[in-house]
Amino acid sequence: MSATKPVHAAQTLFPATQGSLLVGGVPLERLAQRVGRTPFYAYDRALVTERVRQVRACLPAAIGLHYSIKANPMPALVQHLAGLVDGLDVASGGELKVALDTGKHPADISFAGPGKNEVELAQAVAAGVHVHAESEREIRLLARIGEALGVNPQLVLRVNPDFELKGSGMRMGGGAKQFGIDAEEIPRMLALAAQLGLTVLGFHIFSGSQSLKAEAIAEAQAQTFELALRLADGNRDPVRVLNIGGGFGIPYFPGEARLDLQPIGDALAAALPRVQSALPDARLNIELGRYLVGEAGVYVARVIDRKVSRGQVFLVTDGGLHHHLAASGNFGQVIRKNYPAAIGNRIGQAEMEVVSVVGPLCTPLDLLAEKMALPRAEPGDLVVVFQSGAYGLSASPGGFLSHPDALEVLI
Amino acid sequence: MSATKPVHAAQTLFPATQGSLLVGGVPLERLAQRVGRTPFYAYDRALVTERVRQVRACLPAAIGLHYSIKANPMPALVQHLAGLVDGLDVASGGELKVALDTGKHPADISFAGPGKNEVELAQAVAAGVHVHAESEREIRLLARIGEALGVNPQLVLRVNPDFELKGSGMRMGGGAKQFGIDAEEIPRMLALAAQLGLTVLGFHIFSGSQSLKAEAIAEAQAQTFELALRLADGNRDPVRVLNIGGGFGIPYFPGEARLDLQPIGDALAAALPRVQSALPDARLNIELGRYLVGEAGVYVARVIDRKVSRGQVFLVTDGGLHHHLAASGNFGQVIRKNYPAAIGNRIGQAEMEVVSVVGPLCTPLDLLAEKMALPRAEPGDLVVVFQSGAYGLSASPGGFLSHPDALEVLI
Repeated sequence: MSATKPVHAAQTLFPATQGSLLVGGVPLERLAQRVGRTPFYAYDRALVTERVRQVRACLPAAIGLHYSIKANPMPALVQHLAGLVDGLDVASGGELKVALDTGKHPADISFAGPGKNEVELAQAVAAGVHVHAESEREIRLLARIGEALGVNPQLVLRVNPDFELKGSGMRMGGGAKQFGIDAEEIPRMLALAAQLGLTVLGFHIFSGSQSLKAEAIAEAQAQTFELALRLADGNRDPVRVLNIGGGFGIPYFPGEARLDLQPIGDALAAALPRVQSALPDARLNIELGRYLVGEAGVYVARVIDRKVSRGQVFLVTDGGLHHHLAASGNFGQVIRKNYPAAIGNRIGQAEMEVVSVVGPLCTPLDLLAEKMALPRAEPGDLVVVFQSGAYGLSASPGGFLSHPDALEVLI
Repeated sequence: MSATKPVHAAQTLFPATQGSLLVGGVPLERLAQRVGRTPFYAYDRALVTERVRQVRACLPAAIGLHYSIKANPMPALVQHLAGLVDGLDVASGGELKVALDTGKHPADISFAGPGKNEVELAQAVAAGVHVHAESEREIRLLARIGEALGVNPQLVLRVNPDFELKGSGMRMGGGAKQFGIDAEEIPRMLALAAQLGLTVLGFHIFSGSQSLKAEAIAEAQAQTFELALRLADGNRDPVRVLNIGGGFGIPYFPGEARLDLQPIGDALAAALPRVQSALPDARLNIELGRYLVGEAGVYVARVIDRKVSRGQVFLVTDGGLHHHLAASGNFGQVIRKNYPAAIGNRIGQAEMEVVSVVGPLCTPLDLLAEKMALPRAEPGDLVVVFQSGAYGLSASPGGFLSHPDALEVLI
């Protein structure tokens, strides 16, 4: 048996016709003309809709589905999702505005984040959205703000669990963390809330993100339910909300496979009766960001120059790290790996070559693809980076080296 | 002998009075009031001036000093530097505008970058700045643009040398690179330029950046001169410009010491007679970005919350990764290390504790200082991150999670 080189998960979401990738059904060159300039991000509306359908099909109907705006805050995309999901989760005053502008009911919007300032907390109370308090200070502030505004704060406690999501890309819980209130401190916070006259609507327990292991997610969810039941015991009021986080990953790098939702759905279905019987008034929500939009987006840049340096081919594009930091390997990765990529107007071309795709920046960090086999390309061609619908433009240093912004379209 | 833990280079640039750090002579709380909100970057005008003086004092007078705007493009800072240095180097059309707006003479502005588009090249030719061509395509385009505009392009060839700056943080030359034209291709490019009726003013040879080893820099400079003399032999016209790059680093992390300029100055002084005799018409320029401004800047964020999670103290601030990506460890570092930091209104306080300083973002990447010994701090206090004058705000994903921008002031 010979060791085979790991490859990217098959790109099956975007079809191609006559060599041209179709995004939202539009051939890429046509789309570039319509956008008016490169580089741009394009998000496929139908793929987002289909992804929500798939998630709903696998999860029990009793589980509410929320979209976490931080994954991609483009207003048109959030508006589209607002019509598909049960709620929106925000992480700043800026995101709160985007969520409220969709017309989503404030009771279906929740605001979490470890460093909410007083202005943001007051905005959230005034709007009537759920505020996920992450510290004793926030609970005390909410009581003060509620009194000042004459509005009852919609208080949910964010819990730092006593376990973590195994094998997740980002650990958001377990151990010492800035997120949420340590599980063992919750009884004291429930007493504090009661003393301050605040009703605690429920709990938000989130242990990690970007996991591709269904079993690990199902295990974390089981632990989440156990913890929630324990914590609920100490609450004066019936639990009305339980946010069990998300954590569903998408494959970025060679060797990674798509997450299988079925085992997660099955485990949730098996766990539900007990949870529903113990917490009969609780709305159970799952919160997904990247998983709903990440695979529906591509980043498109135009080849400006084709250079051969000491035998190695470089495609120099008008896009790069300043628009797509994650694809450059500088956003949470330890070892840089390539995102899946293509030449969007040469799909299926027989003549291939190994190239590095770089951006226009004067830094060796500005690398979109390193030594990847791609159809032989020329200036004017369109480089496509897949899996770019989440943590793309908004997570990139757009001002770096003062190049023009990238545009974003939803089609 | 016991192994001692490496520490940050001593912070000697910013004085303190009555526990308060002084930036531009202003106590930090007063400065924060004057700025009007946190977080902000503050650049100390006098420290920039002094750094330029130190560099000039060590380098031979015949070496021109350029500022590379990409390190920090804040217009007021560039304007200040324009009055101190001999030239400005830009890496995009956007930076070109900032440079021209200072009133610096176009002949003292140079434009390098591996992916210059046609609009940028035409802007540069129209402005009369030096264009550092990085490929055959750019040379051909410049000839066409020059003809169309009726203006002689001020052409310099950027060379990818056949050596690299040893131990540099960023390798910009040597091996296969997207930067410049391979040294061995230069004779062909000189012939091409001649055939297209273009005068080649000289060469730009840049091998790496962020080096803290004077000997390595001096060695690279010696190799640069050797290469330049070889290349000049093949040029029809006398060499009028030789940009030998920069590469001077500043200490960021524990165990790093400040660069000693003297050996570099001495080596340059020793090399100059031969270079000047072989290239009597050449202006020799060194190009520094980070080294001129990096140590003159601080990032200031306010503590919003002080949390203890399972025995570990977290200071949650209103600033973080979205304003200072490099300090979070996500900009070219493989292993995250702490930037030097302080509590800017508690300098010298006796009571210390080990804390992690995090930002308000819902991601574990949002970390400004991990388990660092700092004066015990409370909400309202000001966290200062030093060595933040270069590749700070402009190199950060300001839109991430839709928090307010950071401000920048020069004082």
